[in-house]
Formats: sequence, structure tokens, C-alpha cells
Amino acid sequence: MVDRNSLRQLRDLLGPGGLLTPESGLAGYEVGARYDTGRAAFVARPASVAQVSRVLSFCCRNGIALLPQSGNTGLVAGSTPDMSGLQGILSLDRLREPFELDYDNRTLRVGAGVRLSEINARMRDAGLSLPIDLGADPCAGGMAATNTGGARFLRFGDIRRNTLGLTVVLANEQGTILELGGELRKDNTGPDWKQCFIGTSGAFGVIAECVFNLERLPVQTAAAYLVPRSDDHVMPLLHAMEERLGFHLSAFEGMSGAAIGHALAHVPSLRNPFPGAAIPDYVLFAEVSRSWPRRENEQPLEAFLEEVLAEIWERAGQPLADAFTGRPDEMWALRHALSEGVKSAGRLVAFDLAFRRGDVMRFRSHMRTELARQFPEVEICDFGHVGDGGVHFNLVVPRAAEATDELIDRLRETVITAAVEEFGGSFSAEHGLGRRNQPFYDRYEDPRLKRLAAAFKRATSPAPIGAVILG
Amino acid sequence: MVDRNSLRQLRDLLGPGGLLTPESGLAGYEVGARYDTGRAAFVARPASVAQVSRVLSFCCRNGIALLPQSGNTGLVAGSTPDMSGLQGILSLDRLREPFELDYDNRTLRVGAGVRLSEINARMRDAGLSLPIDLGADPCAGGMAATNTGGARFLRFGDIRRNTLGLTVVLANEQGTILELGGELRKDNTGPDWKQCFIGTSGAFGVIAECVFNLERLPVQTAAAYLVPRSDDHVMPLLHAMEERLGFHLSAFEGMSGAAIGHALAHVPSLRNPFPGAAIPDYVLFAEVSRSWPRRENEQPLEAFLEEVLAEIWERAGQPLADAFTGRPDEMWALRHALSEGVKSAGRLVAFDLAFRRGDVMRFRSHMRTELARQFPEVEICDFGHVGDGGVHFNLVVPRAAEATDELIDRLRETVITAAVEEFGGSFSAEHGLGRRNQPFYDRYEDPRLKRLAAAFKRATSPAPIGAVILG
Repeated sequence: MVDRNSLRQLRDLLGPGGLLTPESGLAGYEVGARYDTGRAAFVARPASVAQVSRVLSFCCRNGIALLPQSGNTGLVAGSTPDMSGLQGILSLDRLREPFELDYDNRTLRVGAGVRLSEINARMRDAGLSLPIDLGADPCAGGMAATNTGGARFLRFGDIRRNTLGLTVVLANEQGTILELGGELRKDNTGPDWKQCFIGTSGAFGVIAECVFNLERLPVQTAAAYLVPRSDDHVMPLLHAMEERLGFHLSAFEGMSGAAIGHALAHVPSLRNPFPGAAIPDYVLFAEVSRSWPRRENEQPLEAFLEEVLAEIWERAGQPLADAFTGRPDEMWALRHALSEGVKSAGRLVAFDLAFRRGDVMRFRSHMRTELARQFPEVEICDFGHVGDGGVHFNLVVPRAAEATDELIDRLRETVITAAVEEFGGSFSAEHGLGRRNQPFYDRYEDPRLKRLAAAFKRATSPAPIGAVILG
Repeated sequence: MVDRNSLRQLRDLLGPGGLLTPESGLAGYEVGARYDTGRAAFVARPASVAQVSRVLSFCCRNGIALLPQSGNTGLVAGSTPDMSGLQGILSLDRLREPFELDYDNRTLRVGAGVRLSEINARMRDAGLSLPIDLGADPCAGGMAATNTGGARFLRFGDIRRNTLGLTVVLANEQGTILELGGELRKDNTGPDWKQCFIGTSGAFGVIAECVFNLERLPVQTAAAYLVPRSDDHVMPLLHAMEERLGFHLSAFEGMSGAAIGHALAHVPSLRNPFPGAAIPDYVLFAEVSRSWPRRENEQPLEAFLEEVLAEIWERAGQPLADAFTGRPDEMWALRHALSEGVKSAGRLVAFDLAFRRGDVMRFRSHMRTELARQFPEVEICDFGHVGDGGVHFNLVVPRAAEATDELIDRLRETVITAAVEEFGGSFSAEHGLGRRNQPFYDRYEDPRLKRLAAAFKRATSPAPIGAVILG
């Protein structure tokens, strides 16, 4: 329990609206986007970096554990409190400033509490965007703390690649404020410490401000579904597309027929795009884009894509069973509905894995055999990012009664063990680190790197902060 | 002095050809590419990661300071020994394995001693390249240790962006070997520690192997010189090019007339490309490229570029005084001759600076006034990367007798002070950290970050290693 005296001091420190207590209801902060409901001792809502520093300093000196949270859209329990009721939430949702575009530099300095959708809405008139494409709508701070990736990683990379600077506040007695990097694109004047705060869920300090790279906004897009003749044809298709389309290729996704089926069933407004409504076992989704308006002498992008698909169609080995272009917005709508569709189909057991690109289909094939043998009651509803090796290996137990804790634990164990130990894959691709994947960090991280993390934590934020323990 | 007994033990440890001593001549390892000649106690040339570990362990236990070196092409004295004769050079030039292409994954695992030119020669048949474009030909390890950038940063980023994994050996009693990252493109399973070894010149450990991202090789290129009507027209020109050319734009360089003049005088095979041989005060050099062979329905790239230049020519504000396309290889030859040309013109005082893009021309204009007033004997021969804010602000003192140490010190002080304190720029953009910029690290790095570096060094490589002291 956090005592009344501490709460009063925090309230004084933060001013009106700055502190919420359980009496006033904290549900919006205590419930995660997919899993987990916890209990918070309070929610502190600093309105400036200086207030973040004062809260961290106060809590550090008074032994109060804090959990940073911005959009709370994460999927690994990195920003929802545990059930102890002892953690205070450090919400960054009032850090909505600065919002400073440097147009010449193509960079934006932004407070941790600004949503991705707002960034992109406000950058549209300048013809720029933060090129992260997600189903969710996180805030700047959370994106950096989880190093989020997304569906256009193939072309634009993750948040790490697009972050030039961070303002970080440490969980120490001083509440030290550090400026790490800034607006410069080339800068090697010392260790690039901001990298240690990206993707570490606040364990080393709280991200209060970010400087992001912006890219020219895509204004021409075209998209296609590709049905590979077999699993073995997926990589040749990716190569054929990369060879012919070059930097046009902005997404190359994979969708299982099972996931597509659930999305179509769950969202009635979606149209079944497949001939005769027959959903293939596996469908690739490719997007191409250009950031300039179509020029007079330029072939329309959809015609270009169709021509490339026709060439690939004729190719030796016939990698394609079917292919057709369509309206990119409709096609993305189906892609982005997969997650909710799968969730509606029963008890979801989700994995955010990554592999070498060549292993994506091999892992899938291996797990189909393995799960059919060990877990016949489970349906594989995977989808993901073939172009970067990311796989949302989502499993569904259709009949809720069968989804016992014991079954789910065994499933997790089987999938993670195969992914990491047999395929050299990652158990945490792009959703970040949270309580959900702490056991796998504990198991797989090199003990020497855990000791390094412990030393780094002592040197930055010795106080308890964040949902994961690195070290 | 390193005693004979230690040398004998090192020789035993490394086998034939593994240890060079001053008697056998070490000149190739002791002389830097631009500055600095030092004296080494020995050169250890391990032929495997295990041998790197044994050398580091041995030297650490026997108090022998080591300086890692791979291609020794750096410009900041990061890999040449000092004059003490007490440092041993840890040359990585025999680490020419592995050389493992994962074609499906578009990644290459490569030993620290493999040259950039060899990587790209051997990747050509696969249609791939490590997209770093430099005048020099460094090795993999040195590129990672300096976080090198180059002329195509605008499109492909620096080595940091293109590094997925590192094998690092620590300078501690165990010679600990760490695998940091690997072939995965998405991986957030813990802190991304490899980032701390990129760009820190070996101070925290020796980079022995790298896993690099590869990109499709450009096969269509076109290039143009653009003469801006004034300094104020440079940024509008960059915007106009980015808007119309999008991801085609692979370089946007700036070259001073003075630097061009010296290059043309120094390299007789270069043709003066300017009408009437009249060299403008400042010239922009833009390259566009595509990674696929020209398609039937596709406008030739040079025609596309010419059309865009014609549009910009007509633009309100008339940003262009002149513009013309040419053969990209000839144009790059001039661009890459600038460095040697400037060096031949007198005593060179070089700076590797970076700014927000909008400040590149402002800084130039400021320094022209400032240097004319304070240093009339000095000629400004700058060039660099307007598209990413990088500036090789090279100064020449034409009459060697005037280039006193005192003058050069005052010059350095004036330029760095203005760059960092007045313009918020970087004193080390892309050449890395070496003895040359140690004083500026010491002066400008936040003391709290120095303490963090000291703690990180204690936790990684407590023994003396490398040319810089971070902390």
C-alpha cells in the first residue's frame, strides 16, 4: 500500500488532475489491450518532463514502484500493473508537447503521450509521415519503449531506425533528465546511449520525448494477393518481387487461410476476395507504393504491379497458383482484421515470433505436424510479415472449456522451444518486453548479458520501474 | 616496453605469422591513412575469434594495452598507435572468415577483416550489396567500430542501420566472447547491446564478426549537377527533389567550388564539367538509382531525372542557376577526388561535422564571414552530404609555412566551437571516435554520460583498449 501521506505529496507535486487514486476509478489504466487486468496504487499524470523527474525522484526516495504507461495498447503486459496494488502507474498521457516539426530536416520532436494517428494526421499536410504501420494506435513513448515494428518494416524499418533522439528520465533519487541524441542524422560523438532505452520497456528509464525521422508520405499505392503454389514457392516469390519491384515493395505479408476465415466471419463488412469464396491455405499480400503523385510518362502503379505479376506467373517453376490486385484499402482492412478475427474464434494463445526469412514457412510446416500430433484441439491461425521474418503465430482453442491453464502452458512451451531452440528464432519480435515474456528472457538470455543489464540498471535507474526485470 | 617473455608467449599463442615485432617492420600498421604515425610494441594477428579471445585475455592479465585495427583507413586516429611504443596492435586483418551469405534473408555474416570492396565484389552475382559508399576501402570491423556513413546515407543509412549482429570479444581476463544479435531482422528479447559496440572504436570490446543487411544492387543510375541560385535555394532544391523523386534519390551532395578546383588540378584525368570551365561557388550533386533492369514501359532514368530538373527549373523562385545530367561514374569520380584534391592544395585541417539539414548552408555562410575575418590565409574547401546534414568542412592553409601548430589549434577551436555551441552540430559525424576528437568528447559529453560510459566499461572491457577513453 502506498500511504496517504505519499499520495498527498504526489498530488501537491502534480497539481490538479495530476494524480488519480483507486477511489476515482483507474480502469482505463489498469486493463491491457489484450490480456491482463491489474491493480494500481495510483496513476500519476505528469504534464511536463520536469514533473516526470519530480515523480521519479519522489517515488525513488520513498520506495514506491512505478510502471510507465503511454497508450497502453501493448500485447505483452509491459504497461499494465500486476495484481499487487503496490505499483503506481506513471502515465505519460499528458505529455502531449512538444510537437515540433523541422521540415527541412524531416524530423519531429514529440512528447511521449502523442498518438501515432495524431502524428500522422498532423504531418499529412506537409506530405510526411512517421512510417510505422500498426493495427493499434500507440503513443510515441510506448512505441520507442517497445521498439515497435509493423507491416511496413520491410521498407521503413522499426522505431529504432526512425528514432534520432530521446529525452529520458531515470528512476534514481535525482530523477535525472538525459538528452540522448537529438535532431542530427549523423552523430558519433560518444556511445549512442538512446539505443539502450529503446525496446527495454522503461526498465532503464522513462522515455518522455522522442525525435523521429519522417518519410515522404506514400501517395500512389497498389496491392495484390498472391497464392503460392506451395510453401516452397514463398521465398522464390519474395525474391522475384524484390528483384523486379525494388524499393516499391512496402509490405510482403503472409496470412493463413484460417485467420482469413475468422476475420471474414467476425467482420461482416469485409468482402471475401477469393474466387468462388474459396479461401486458400496461405495467401501473400504485397503492397507497392510511391511517395510522389503519378507523372504523365509514368505507368500507373497498379499496371506496373500487374505486369510484374504476369511475368512471375510465366516464370519457370510456376510459383503462383493465383494472383490478383485489388483496392489497397480493402486489402489492408482484411489484413488488419485478422487479429480481432482470430481473437473472436475461441481462446487465443498468441506468439510474436521472428525467424530468418527463409525459416518462416519451414517453422510453419514443422509446427503444423507437431501441433496436429500433440494438440489436435488447437487451430493454427498465423499471419505476419514474411518480408522481415516476423510471425504472429496465433493459436486458437475453439472450445473454451478445453483451454485449461495446463494446456496453454504446454502450448507456450512447445511453440517457444521449437522457435528458439530448433529454429534460432526470437520469442519477442516486435511487441516488446513485458511480464508475458519475462520467463523466456530469464531462460534464454545469456547470463553474462543479464549481469551487464544489472550493471547498466544500477548505473541508470536503480529503483524498481517497469514491468520487466532485466538482469 | 613489452618484455620478450610476453612476446614469446603471444607468438606461441598465435602460431606462425601471427605476431609481428618492430624488428620485422610494422610500418603498414603504424601509419594512419591521413594523419598520425605511431609506434607499436607488436602486431598480433589472430586468425580466429578464439585467438582474439586468447590475445585479449593474455594482454589483460599482463597489463598490455591493445589497439584494435582492421583496414586502418580511418581519419581520426582511431586505429593507429600513439608514440609510446607501449601499445600492441590487435590487427583483425586475418579474420577473413566467415563469409556466409543467407540469400533468402538478404544478410551476410562476415569476419572483421574483410574489406568493403571484397564484400561488394562477391555479392555482385547475387544482385546484392552492402549499401555503404565511401572514398576509402575499410574492413567490416572498422566500419562497425566507427559507425561509418557515406554518400548514400540518405537512402540506405549508416552501418548501424545495416548491422543485425556482432560477435564481440571483451578486454577482460576471460577474453569473453559475446554473440549480440544475429541474422534476425526483428528481435526484441532484451537490450540491444550490440548498439553500444557500434561507433565506440573498440573501447568496450573488439568487433570480430558482423552480420550485415544487404540491399538489392542499383543497376540503373543517373546523376546531375545542380547549381543553386544562392545558398537560400539549396533546401528548396532538396525538397523539390525529394518530393518528385521519392526513394529514387540515393545521394544529394554538396561540393564547394574551391574543392572542385583542387580536385581538377590534382587529377588530370578528370574533365572540367562546367560550361566554359567556370566552376561555380557551390554545386549540388544528385544521384538517382533503381535496383531493377529498365522495363519496357519505363522511362529511362536519365530522362526521368531531366524531366524533374526541367520542372524545378520552371519553379517559382527559380532555385536553379544551372543543371545538367552526366555520366554517374564520371560525376562520382570528381566527387570522390575532392578529398585527395584538397589534401594536395596545402596543409589540410579537416572537420567531419553534421548539422540539421537546414543548418548546413547557414553554418557555411557563417564560417565564411568568420574565417575571412580571423583567418584570411585559410581557404574553405568544404564538401559533404547535404541530404543528411554531414559536412566535411575542410580547410586548407595554402602556404605550409603559415600552418603553425598555434594557427591550427586556433582554427580547430573556432570551427568546433561554432559548430557545436552556435549551431548544435556534431563534431564527429561519420568518421568515428579517435585520438583526434578525444578532446571534444572530453569537453562536450554530458558528465553523467561519461560516468555511465565508465560503468559500462567496467562491466565489459575493464582493460585498456582502443584509442579513445570514454568515461
